[in-house]
Amino acid sequence: MAAAKTFSAELLSRQVSAILTAWGMPPEQVEVTARVMIAADLRGIDTHGIATLSLYDDFRRWGKLTLTPEIKVVRESPVTALLDGGGGLGHFPGVKAMELAIAKCAATGVGVVAVRNSNHYGAAGIYALQAVERGFIGVSTTGVWRPGVVPTFGAEPMFGTNPIAFAAPARRHPPFCLDMATSTVAIGKVKLAALHGEAIPPGWALDNEGRAVTDAKNAMKHLSMTPLGGTPEMSSHKGYGLGAMVEILSTILPGACFSATRQQKNPDAERYNVGQFFLALDPKAFRGEGEFESDLDDMIDALHAMKRADPAQPVLVPGDPEQAQIAGRTRDGIPVTEEMARNLRRIAESCGAEFLLET
Amino acid sequence: MAAAKTFSAELLSRQVSAILTAWGMPPEQVEVTARVMIAADLRGIDTHGIATLSLYDDFRRWGKLTLTPEIKVVRESPVTALLDGGGGLGHFPGVKAMELAIAKCAATGVGVVAVRNSNHYGAAGIYALQAVERGFIGVSTTGVWRPGVVPTFGAEPMFGTNPIAFAAPARRHPPFCLDMATSTVAIGKVKLAALHGEAIPPGWALDNEGRAVTDAKNAMKHLSMTPLGGTPEMSSHKGYGLGAMVEILSTILPGACFSATRQQKNPDAERYNVGQFFLALDPKAFRGEGEFESDLDDMIDALHAMKRADPAQPVLVPGDPEQAQIAGRTRDGIPVTEEMARNLRRIAESCGAEFLLET
Repeated sequence: MAAAKTFSAELLSRQVSAILTAWGMPPEQVEVTARVMIAADLRGIDTHGIATLSLYDDFRRWGKLTLTPEIKVVRESPVTALLDGGGGLGHFPGVKAMELAIAKCAATGVGVVAVRNSNHYGAAGIYALQAVERGFIGVSTTGVWRPGVVPTFGAEPMFGTNPIAFAAPARRHPPFCLDMATSTVAIGKVKLAALHGEAIPPGWALDNEGRAVTDAKNAMKHLSMTPLGGTPEMSSHKGYGLGAMVEILSTILPGACFSATRQQKNPDAERYNVGQFFLALDPKAFRGEGEFESDLDDMIDALHAMKRADPAQPVLVPGDPEQAQIAGRTRDGIPVTEEMARNLRRIAESCGAEFLLET
Repeated sequence: MAAAKTFSAELLSRQVSAILTAWGMPPEQVEVTARVMIAADLRGIDTHGIATLSLYDDFRRWGKLTLTPEIKVVRESPVTALLDGGGGLGHFPGVKAMELAIAKCAATGVGVVAVRNSNHYGAAGIYALQAVERGFIGVSTTGVWRPGVVPTFGAEPMFGTNPIAFAAPARRHPPFCLDMATSTVAIGKVKLAALHGEAIPPGWALDNEGRAVTDAKNAMKHLSMTPLGGTPEMSSHKGYGLGAMVEILSTILPGACFSATRQQKNPDAERYNVGQFFLALDPKAFRGEGEFESDLDDMIDALHAMKRADPAQPVLVPGDPEQAQIAGRTRDGIPVTEEMARNLRRIAESCGAEFLLET
């Protein structure tokens, strides 16, 4: 693959905004969606940043995306709310949902908001961190439009990669931020191995009989990933259980569509009806001012200082790799591969948006 | 090993109660503690039922257990509370904490209660199911008195097996109930392999240099389990991240003691100060009456009906194996191995309690 060129977050944001605007998305939604996408790129989560525009362009051309969605509060109490995303992308209702959870949390100590009739919302961690900016613990989970993970003992995908994000505020350290798919690895890792002609370890992916696949190209045909754990012997039932938990919170709770049965139940649906879950929790409801953050700092220090298996490989805390990426990419720009630049040019041209990434 | 004898839940409960009473525990606490312990045995979670009496007897003899603890509400709001467990076993404050979370949830849609200055509380799933009995989603997590799980790239245990329990009410089906340690496997599995002289798979346990151990007896020396995922290649950083999340919710939030630094920070502490986290969430804050339960039933049906890797091995839903155990053990009794019966006799005799399991 050719070397990637780098572009500033600001320029990439303008490129994304130009495309979303050309698609007909209203200005406030463009601003929020672009911000969430670029935040993923800055954190090094390339699979959930500008690269997802290709998928969104597919959704749009397939008629699966409302570009001027109306976000509605369907139910509300002082601590909870249910939002309807109006059939559009998930970033805007996601940010609105977490804002609402934060407002409720500021008043009561807890806020829980679920969203239905939404779609792909980018990197789950961005929403969890939104709560941390206000000094709260943040949780977010999402369903996925298409199943890609096979339950233990099964031979077909039933859940999406159903991620869990959990973030918490420290004081001396950057926030703790766990943002993980409940599959063993992301499909992107298999795609990369297929591109490089490399084998993948048994336990990452399955064929359509539920058998382990080590040929990455073959794995890309089936798109059947294992739940975290990988094999029954290594407790894949736990990753499967976590994926099911995420489905219950993100899909069943708001009344969104369980992706594995979407086609049977609603073959003519114009929208995917993906759902999300958001929780904000105030440490000050439990501890004195600053005590939680200080204890979390101490835990992070203990993890960084612990005995290493390999002296050259530090023990990392969830959020550490992303902090390093933010520093590097803020300084040096965000890499865009030639393939991605071609994709972005094609998408821009097809909707009449200006292409800003000429080199 | 000699064959196990079986005893009714009622008789085992009387045996546990006799011992706890002889230890000086007040009647209400005896009743609740015995009930939670026997509930674990009925669900087939043998490691967290009556077998734990040996550990509690150790705690007691080491002076680490208050047997007449006073449970105090330290902070409270309409949605949240912090309890102090008074330095005793965790079952009684655990049940009280979830009762409080349920009462708050009934009033507001959500209840979050954390407990500090507690100890081992048995099987996390019992508390999550307590919420389900009231029609709510239940979550519980706990820290552990002693670290036994090694973070990715590390060479010493920093977290306990830090379990996550999540339960949700269905209608036609028994509740969904995920109750999982965030380690790859429980230490009990390694102990069993050591007893049988069997090897364990690489990725279950480590030595004190962070290297994989396959000799079960050697693994029992180090008691250094891997986080779910097992190896970095299989994404053990996710299991490690989940264990850290549980530590933040169970230990940092209530102000309990991070087990890995307990000795440095507080070497003379008379109590372990383990913490727990409890959440109850009302589906009716989001959905119409019965809609959540009905959609969860449909998801469970779809999982049971899905294509299998092996036609003879059904796909299970979290909670299914425990339901089968409850049916069998209610009918046939709960098995008690000869070794466990000897332990219980020794414990009973040493505190002057009647031994009821003569055969």
